[in-house]
Amino acid sequence: MPQQSIIDKVNDIAKRRGFFWPSYEIYGGVAGFLTIGPLGTILKRNIENKFRDTFIRRLGFLEIETSVIVPGKVFEASGHVEHFKEPMVECKKCTRKFRADHLLQEAGLTDTETEKMGLKEIEETIRKLGVRCPECGGEFREPRYFLTMFETTIGPYSKNLGYGRPEAAQGIFTEYKRVYEAAREKLPIGIVQIGHALRNEISPRQGPIRLREFTIIDLEFFFDPANPKCSRIKEVEDELLRLVLAENKLRGIFDITEMTVKEALNKGIIKNEWLAFFMALAKNFLIELGIPDDKQRFIEKLEWERAHYSVQGFDQEVYLDRLGWVEVSGHNYRTDYDLKRHMLYSGVDLRVYKEFSEPIYVEEKVVKPLMSTIGPQFKNLSGEVVRLLSKADPDEVERAFREKGYYQAGEFRILPEHVKIVKEKKAIKGRKFIPHVIEPSFGSERLLYVTLYYSYRVKDNRTILSLPVDIAPIQVAVFPLVARKDLKDKALQIYRTLLDEGFMVEYDESASIGRRYARADEIGVPLAVTVDHKTLEDDTVTVRDRDSWRQFRISIEKLPVAMSKYFKGKTSFEELMSQFKVIE
Amino acid sequence: MPQQSIIDKVNDIAKRRGFFWPSYEIYGGVAGFLTIGPLGTILKRNIENKFRDTFIRRLGFLEIETSVIVPGKVFEASGHVEHFKEPMVECKKCTRKFRADHLLQEAGLTDTETEKMGLKEIEETIRKLGVRCPECGGEFREPRYFLTMFETTIGPYSKNLGYGRPEAAQGIFTEYKRVYEAAREKLPIGIVQIGHALRNEISPRQGPIRLREFTIIDLEFFFDPANPKCSRIKEVEDELLRLVLAENKLRGIFDITEMTVKEALNKGIIKNEWLAFFMALAKNFLIELGIPDDKQRFIEKLEWERAHYSVQGFDQEVYLDRLGWVEVSGHNYRTDYDLKRHMLYSGVDLRVYKEFSEPIYVEEKVVKPLMSTIGPQFKNLSGEVVRLLSKADPDEVERAFREKGYYQAGEFRILPEHVKIVKEKKAIKGRKFIPHVIEPSFGSERLLYVTLYYSYRVKDNRTILSLPVDIAPIQVAVFPLVARKDLKDKALQIYRTLLDEGFMVEYDESASIGRRYARADEIGVPLAVTVDHKTLEDDTVTVRDRDSWRQFRISIEKLPVAMSKYFKGKTSFEELMSQFKVIE
Repeated sequence: MPQQSIIDKVNDIAKRRGFFWPSYEIYGGVAGFLTIGPLGTILKRNIENKFRDTFIRRLGFLEIETSVIVPGKVFEASGHVEHFKEPMVECKKCTRKFRADHLLQEAGLTDTETEKMGLKEIEETIRKLGVRCPECGGEFREPRYFLTMFETTIGPYSKNLGYGRPEAAQGIFTEYKRVYEAAREKLPIGIVQIGHALRNEISPRQGPIRLREFTIIDLEFFFDPANPKCSRIKEVEDELLRLVLAENKLRGIFDITEMTVKEALNKGIIKNEWLAFFMALAKNFLIELGIPDDKQRFIEKLEWERAHYSVQGFDQEVYLDRLGWVEVSGHNYRTDYDLKRHMLYSGVDLRVYKEFSEPIYVEEKVVKPLMSTIGPQFKNLSGEVVRLLSKADPDEVERAFREKGYYQAGEFRILPEHVKIVKEKKAIKGRKFIPHVIEPSFGSERLLYVTLYYSYRVKDNRTILSLPVDIAPIQVAVFPLVARKDLKDKALQIYRTLLDEGFMVEYDESASIGRRYARADEIGVPLAVTVDHKTLEDDTVTVRDRDSWRQFRISIEKLPVAMSKYFKGKTSFEELMSQFKVIE
Repeated sequence: MPQQSIIDKVNDIAKRRGFFWPSYEIYGGVAGFLTIGPLGTILKRNIENKFRDTFIRRLGFLEIETSVIVPGKVFEASGHVEHFKEPMVECKKCTRKFRADHLLQEAGLTDTETEKMGLKEIEETIRKLGVRCPECGGEFREPRYFLTMFETTIGPYSKNLGYGRPEAAQGIFTEYKRVYEAAREKLPIGIVQIGHALRNEISPRQGPIRLREFTIIDLEFFFDPANPKCSRIKEVEDELLRLVLAENKLRGIFDITEMTVKEALNKGIIKNEWLAFFMALAKNFLIELGIPDDKQRFIEKLEWERAHYSVQGFDQEVYLDRLGWVEVSGHNYRTDYDLKRHMLYSGVDLRVYKEFSEPIYVEEKVVKPLMSTIGPQFKNLSGEVVRLLSKADPDEVERAFREKGYYQAGEFRILPEHVKIVKEKKAIKGRKFIPHVIEPSFGSERLLYVTLYYSYRVKDNRTILSLPVDIAPIQVAVFPLVARKDLKDKALQIYRTLLDEGFMVEYDESASIGRRYARADEIGVPLAVTVDHKTLEDDTVTVRDRDSWRQFRISIEKLPVAMSKYFKGKTSFEELMSQFKVIE
């Protein structure tokens, strides 16, 4: 299996059999847009639903759906209007525009180097290295920043700016308060959004990897920063993580350090338990999609590589030949950055109130007015004096007595004899705080891509997409052995039965049976049911396995239950083989 | 049950319990954007998945996913840049902007009347009726058209216009060729896209009904116009449709005419069998969502009410108190309009080739050169003469002989003696044509809304959302009778078992059991499982029905299978009651 061309082969199958292809081809194509075809749409949804099962349903988390077009104010608050931009240069001669950092990377710099450069430094480096327009060889104008959000206006007023969202997370932050209330004010809480995101890349490349529009899976996990412990950490603490550490990266070392979740936490390498928990879940999620553990790694972000909201971040990457390590998810500790900013910009209190299990009693200094001395001296103004004293800071009063011998309360001069400063016990029932946020964030198209890539097999010169059984877009193909009317009728009848049972079924009667098996293998159909002459005699069919090409014979009656168990993972093909009549 | 306030009650539950609410409330709200909350997101997806099951999986149709941001050229080709606009007026005094036709409707005109008005007529009518700014009473400037698509630019070049798609259909048309090829060139074929659509409304109102961003479900059904018969029409021909006919509307009559699909087709009222087929399916789909047949109707569009691409159209409407008839789907015969336009604008041939089952033989006139006379006369130029004659139109040659006695082929004068005009048989193996399109198109949020509306019940002063069992967002709630540790542990254990079995489960131990039942009823949870003291003795639990509040007792062991059958519709609560121990 020539490793170097798997990408080409997968891209070829994807286009030819309808998983995905570049959009708008009839108009010459527009870079950065991908059409997900019929098989890809089901596979992508199956992957997303698997995510939902693992990260939402089983954890008791919530999912919401907000708009792709978002009022400008939201991205001012979030910091995107300020930070979500890339350095761009324009050729003086042909006026073409390029990502300046990409040009420098092509000239030999690493992304770690270009990431921390300002415009001035970029300009100097371009001059120093003599970088010219790759299209016409022209010189560049001075670099400037390009905002990589799609900009539009909402409604008929031109000043009502709106942006295409570059992440689904902000929809969660702006709607957080109401979700929190509808969920009866529980913390911690995970809120997910899966939907289209838009990034107006300057010059997208790499086909399905760098897209202007893609599906993002953002999980925002809100927790009390005073209680950052993960209640489920036990479930994952022995999981091994393959890490590329920031401290090593700084010294130019990209080796993988393998350690357990527990170790990484104990050594302070991962700074939050929930962050580690989600990383372990993400690793296993990818394994279940068919990506081997040893083709995955988590690479820690350096300070200047992190998004503006993140205090620690790891990218989960998958190794693909030719492309190298490709990011499929990001795991960031966003702290209270976003909610704080939205509080500031909206003026709405987004803090949550948490009642203590029992009140906390604290000792507090209190200024007690002594009416026996105040009364006689301040007479009918005594009430006003008492009111002012109730607002006075006890420490301030003590200091004034110490330094000046009196305390000035409004117009009144208060002497030590007028008050007594005592310590009193006070009950505090709870506190208000802004929750902190851990964010695992995935790209659906990249998950789709790496899943297809790692499902690719060749057997006897034939291609098999060995997709995990629970996410295969078509579950079963029904074939009449030959296109004879009685066999076709019988096969169609089985096809309809399996449809009624809720399976994703395909019926095909064209070409030779060998060709139909090959076609089914190429799109990853786990099971093929074939109706032959024996079927007409004894109501049995053959069931063929995509990966081993082995077959057994089963009565039509028993087929739905056997298939149901198989697709729920309650039995394997091997087990079915041992139960039914194997065909050699 | 006071009918007039169901909408308010549903909106209240939707907001409080997390089905949906207006977006960006912390920023004062932005009209036309809706947040789908945690319960709404599941319910909406369940509705969409039900659609997929009925309209895609069972019909063998295909689904694809394309981008929300679309290059400008696509909507120039589709006619949207030209047609997708609304008349707008601006107040001279306060500069506020309004939909001109809506103002006229508020002044008493019908939408049938305003729909066909041009700008001139609108201006005159505003003047005649003395319509003023509803905000400040100011006069209006002359009306103009506002393009109701969100406009943006793709990439860093300002001339690369892009639009937010107002329909998902165009993604299907632009990608049609590749989908058709991947599906091995079968016709008819249905291609679906479910995704966000954007309409930059001038001043959206009506809360969740008229949105600037919503989820559209577009099904484009492609068929051979020479074979417009629906192969499945038998399945629906006796279905009754409630129609409001265009011919009646023209006479101001909005009465509902009830007739079967067969009748409507025979009388030529519905002009295409597939159009009728999808309308019948749409009716039944809504019935399965809980919307009674007699609260639905199909209203035929008048010529000037139809979209620019449609030759016949029906809107499926649902009756809601206060709002009246609300459109939930549109059914249009788009003909070959869209593919034809994209052929014209892209220069790519989008026709399909269909081979006849056997070749058709036609008689054709052919001009046969007679070499015995041509040779001697034209000598070494004979070859050129023969070439020119092979391109000549036989009728043209005959006419020339008749009228002038000769035919001029380039520089050569051809006389009747030089040729023989004969009839020859020719085999035609197939033909090329542009498929025609029938389009059923639904709005997800409206389906969600009418589903919630018709699920609303009041029983003993308590609210029940009597959602169809197969789309309820939470399937089962697990409660310990009281919050005692042993009961809680047992209940949590059952909760985890049901999670493992794949159910949507909620666990709740707060407040009284009565209050928890009420909460579960209010969000439409079909079953509640309660762990009580008896559970600890004999491992049985009670199962309570949301709608009847009746209960039976079942062993924990048998619970998953019983629930599985119940949610698959293979058994009813009544049947379970007869099988297990009823609690009186």
